[in-house]
Amino acid sequence: MSKTSVKRGRPGYERAEVLRLCVAEFNERGYEATSMDMLAKKLGLTKSAIYHHVASKEEILEIALKQALNALDEVFEAGEVLEADALERLEFVVRQTVFVLTDHLPEVTLLLRLRGNTPVEDAALGKRRELTVRLSNLVGAAQEAGFVRQDADPATLARLIFGMINSLSGWYDPTRGSDVDALADTVVEMAFHGIGRHTL
Amino acid sequence: MSKTSVKRGRPGYERAEVLRLCVAEFNERGYEATSMDMLAKKLGLTKSAIYHHVASKEEILEIALKQALNALDEVFEAGEVLEADALERLEFVVRQTVFVLTDHLPEVTLLLRLRGNTPVEDAALGKRRELTVRLSNLVGAAQEAGFVRQDADPATLARLIFGMINSLSGWYDPTRGSDVDALADTVVEMAFHGIGRHTL
Repeated sequence: MSKTSVKRGRPGYERAEVLRLCVAEFNERGYEATSMDMLAKKLGLTKSAIYHHVASKEEILEIALKQALNALDEVFEAGEVLEADALERLEFVVRQTVFVLTDHLPEVTLLLRLRGNTPVEDAALGKRRELTVRLSNLVGAAQEAGFVRQDADPATLARLIFGMINSLSGWYDPTRGSDVDALADTVVEMAFHGIGRHTL
Repeated sequence: MSKTSVKRGRPGYERAEVLRLCVAEFNERGYEATSMDMLAKKLGLTKSAIYHHVASKEEILEIALKQALNALDEVFEAGEVLEADALERLEFVVRQTVFVLTDHLPEVTLLLRLRGNTPVEDAALGKRRELTVRLSNLVGAAQEAGFVRQDADPATLARLIFGMINSLSGWYDPTRGSDVDALADTVVEMAFHGIGRHTL
């Protein structure tokens, strides 16, 4: 596919572009099923040209996962110290997480498909679990403050919220020029009020 | 892992058990990354013993996907002809889909992780898209009948609902003896009313 290949002999050879194409290939074929040989072929490069940028297939994975996890971590850090009530903090995190998904779609997609067969994957899955705990804590605080229904445990509600948001990795198409703000509004509305039509 | 191995020399050798263990291995390692050699090793069988039950790795996938897709199809067929209003039809499908997920967790998990690199996978992904269209149609009918918010398109709402439900494949643990009815209630409540605490 010449369209997606890294151009040979290009002087300012871009590591970011190599990484981007490798992540796309991982998402296409699965991380485990993708070898460095396949990556080299896909990118139109020799393996040693790839090794010029990264030490291993696993390092590519590690870099991509860090991008996704750092972006999510920043959202939680900002939300947790927000000078606002428990409902606004939770809403902030839900909305901003939608933007992380749309901004870092390939990296988050990779993160969401991990199985944890290597130490790098295990570590990333551990971080994902931490984020669920943090969302669960925000939900719990909003329950205590009386903003959120108390007939379900915060962990289940947190997982369902993440389920909704994470599903974007399977269907959000950035090339369609969707209005990301409107999408974030819909997700927040759906999370807090559901699809039902409420007479206000 | 002797615990999960099929017992050698067992007379009423069970095809269903072979399939179950293969599906578990696909979910553990990824379908593409799993070879028949790996399956044979995992099951403590020779490859020819596996070929006694199935023609190929792809046939195992096909059978498992059919189980998941048929169960989902039945839910929609029942929901679409339910003698009830548009809201009840939609609610029926949402609730019953939760039960399909919990009853056929490994097969649905496999379905949800497909990438579509083979004709069997492509066909299953096509069926998944059909189900999303059918859910979207149910949401659209409920919107027209005035039961569901009209500030978002039915396809987006359908995908967010499926996102919530499908997330169960990543965290629902049948061994914990969760109360499936309570879980289905929570999902339905969440889908229609969100996590917000509504004063009635």
